[in-house]
Amino acid sequence: MEKEIQFRIATEQDLDRIVEMLADDELGRKRERYEQPLPESYTKAYQAITSDANNELVVAYQGNEILGVQQITFTPYITHQGGWRATIEGVRTTSSVRGKGVGTELIKWAIQRAKERGCHLIQLTTDKQRVDALRFYERLGFKSTHEGLKMKLE
Amino acid sequence: MEKEIQFRIATEQDLDRIVEMLADDELGRKRERYEQPLPESYTKAYQAITSDANNELVVAYQGNEILGVQQITFTPYITHQGGWRATIEGVRTTSSVRGKGVGTELIKWAIQRAKERGCHLIQLTTDKQRVDALRFYERLGFKSTHEGLKMKLE
Repeated sequence: MEKEIQFRIATEQDLDRIVEMLADDELGRKRERYEQPLPESYTKAYQAITSDANNELVVAYQGNEILGVQQITFTPYITHQGGWRATIEGVRTTSSVRGKGVGTELIKWAIQRAKERGCHLIQLTTDKQRVDALRFYERLGFKSTHEGLKMKLE
Repeated sequence: MEKEIQFRIATEQDLDRIVEMLADDELGRKRERYEQPLPESYTKAYQAITSDANNELVVAYQGNEILGVQQITFTPYITHQGGWRATIEGVRTTSSVRGKGVGTELIKWAIQRAKERGCHLIQLTTDKQRVDALRFYERLGFKSTHEGLKMKLE
């Protein structure tokens, strides 16, 4: 019998595996550096996330195996009568389980967590190059009502 | 001679004027409640923003007059080698000065602030119903590379 997929906040021991997953991706391989030792910038980011009550780095796992990762940010806004939002970013699943529902379970977990935190809205942006990802999120109930604009800074 | 537009972190005394601006907007009038006294949810959100070192509510002003508002959120991510991002949200200018460059100055200020905070990317989403807004951000150098997906939560 297959073990159930579970979720927990990532620990520093998971970081190596998380960066490996982020780098094993069509867009990620151009911008990540999965090396040993791991570049210090990853450890610093991990520490900044962990020390911030409004950021959660979450892993999906089965037994000892990490299967997926996502980051959820909770933000208070004045707009929408002072409503909190949850933003999902950096969703990846390990290549061996792609198409097996781990991504769906991750997002459902984030939705549940956003409700627990009292958010009125959950949001994310997805690169227009990821055509499958857009369909995936729409199937889960997200509406692509917005343009996602980015500017790189030097 | 016209006074220069200046910028500062909003105080609680600015909140009434900020909500008035948010409500005086095509989409905002459907979802905000500009009433006296101001609904408590706005005050609570203001306090949550102010007590979070990674959130800044910024106003543009000239003399005693508030001309615009925006919120900037700074977020550490594991992606992009552990890079920080700035997210702009809730950008509004007072109707009497629309088209006079206050919005441009607000966004330029946010870009400068994002650089000071060491962000590698600045981002925002804009409702696809706001056709002029998309052009406005593209003129400022943003690229609409992403779909912005949202889901309302009960």
